Amino acid sequence: MSSQAQQGMPEAPGTDTSAVVRGYRATKTAHLKRLARIEGQVRGISSVIDGDTYCIDVLTQVSAATRALQAVALGLLDEHMAHCLVNAVEAGGDERDAKLAEASAAIARLVRS
Amino acid sequence: MSSQAQQGMPEAPGTDTSAVVRGYRATKTAHLKRLARIEGQVRGISSVIDGDTYCIDVLTQVSAATRALQAVALGLLDEHMAHCLVNAVEAGGDERDAKLAEASAAIARLVRS
Amino acid sequence: MSSQAQQGMPEAPGTDTSAVVRGYRATKTAHLKRLARIEGQVRGISSVIDGDTYCIDVLTQVSAATRALQAVALGLLDEHMAHCLVNAVEAGGDERDAKLAEASAAIARLVRS
Amino acid sequence: MSSQAQQGMPEAPGTDTSAVVRGYRATKTAHLKRLARIEGQVRGISSVIDGDTYCIDVLTQVSAATRALQAVALGLLDEHMAHCLVNAVEAGGDERDAKLAEASAAIARLVRS
Repeated sequence: MSSQAQQGMPEAPGTDTSAVVRGYRATKTAHLKRLARIEGQVRGISSVIDGDTYCIDVLTQVSAATRALQAVALGLLDEHMAHCLVNAVEAGGDERDAKLAEASAAIARLVRS
Repeated sequence: MSSQAQQGMPEAPGTDTSAVVRGYRATKTAHLKRLARIEGQVRGISSVIDGDTYCIDVLTQVSAATRALQAVALGLLDEHMAHCLVNAVEAGGDERDAKLAEASAAIARLVRS
Repeated sequence: MSSQAQQGMPEAPGTDTSAVVRGYRATKTAHLKRLARIEGQVRGISSVIDGDTYCIDVLTQVSAATRALQAVALGLLDEHMAHCLVNAVEAGGDERDAKLAEASAAIARLVRS
Repeated sequence: MSSQAQQGMPEAPGTDTSAVVRGYRATKTAHLKRLARIEGQVRGISSVIDGDTYCIDVLTQVSAATRALQAVALGLLDEHMAHCLVNAVEAGGDERDAKLAEASAAIARLVRS
């Protein structure tokens, strides 16, 4: 990732010592909040099943958690494309082709899941 | 639910004291185990994001959790149809029509989520 | 199918000479119209590809056709449940169990496609 | 699209006289064949409904056509990314951002359809 892209990130560059910067870095906190909420939704499904809630109401909650997970996946994918894929295209050659193939495979898994 | 339907359940009828018996009653423990595993998967996604794992690998884990939730939904739906829907059909009339419409709506939500 | 169920169908009973009545019989014309429209949508996708329309606009049309096919599937499934499945439940025994398993498998295919 | 991108296409540049080159250009014939087959599948669904085929068998055919359409969409998207999106990234700036946003929206539509 180019240095100006890193500087565009919300975190202070000095706080991150890792050599690798992920596409989702700028929105990590938002993702972690969303996932904590989904974890709570899944725990909620367990407790409504444990409490013998009506099946259809349980199903509604499962659908909601599934959609929330899908939204996380779409968010991660957007960021992956805007950062990692863009960098790979700028690098060109095999790196670009490999990342394009990898992104396509990830999209296909999402569409089919 | 009619008493003969309750007697058709795998558990000894005497062990359940609640007035309401859900379609998933016989498999509650299996569902709770599955959901505990999915909760762990979601927590795992948080920790790989927190640890800056490569985006595509995170996406693979999100797809796996989504499919696991879908499997729970399909399991709940099967049981709902085999118990609640069958009972409603045996009851007939409005009860049957209401449960059929409700099941259709739940299936549509699943297909579209 | 019981004779009163047949009489509940919109068509004059005398016009159908087949021994078998499908769940979608009452809405056959509506399904055929929808499918003719989807066939036109698919033909339209071919012609926009042939005319070098912008990829994303082609994709939008493919998504629309996919959703239209899904709507046909959900319609057929509703009717299958309201007729064939209800009849099988009324028949009871193996017939009921076989039709429930078959409907579950069809729903799983829909959810995963 | 830049002229060097056009030259990177598999076909001999002289065979195409249109000013616009789409991501799917190299595989147009394959897409048209696939779509002709899907058109046949949809027509087949009409004729099995017209012939009162068993609902579940109709549903199986609808699921197959839906999956075939999804495969066309994934193929178009791959090519869009490998050509149009790569060109936009090379162009940089607003063009890149607009194409990334557009691709993300198309992927979201696919995942949700």
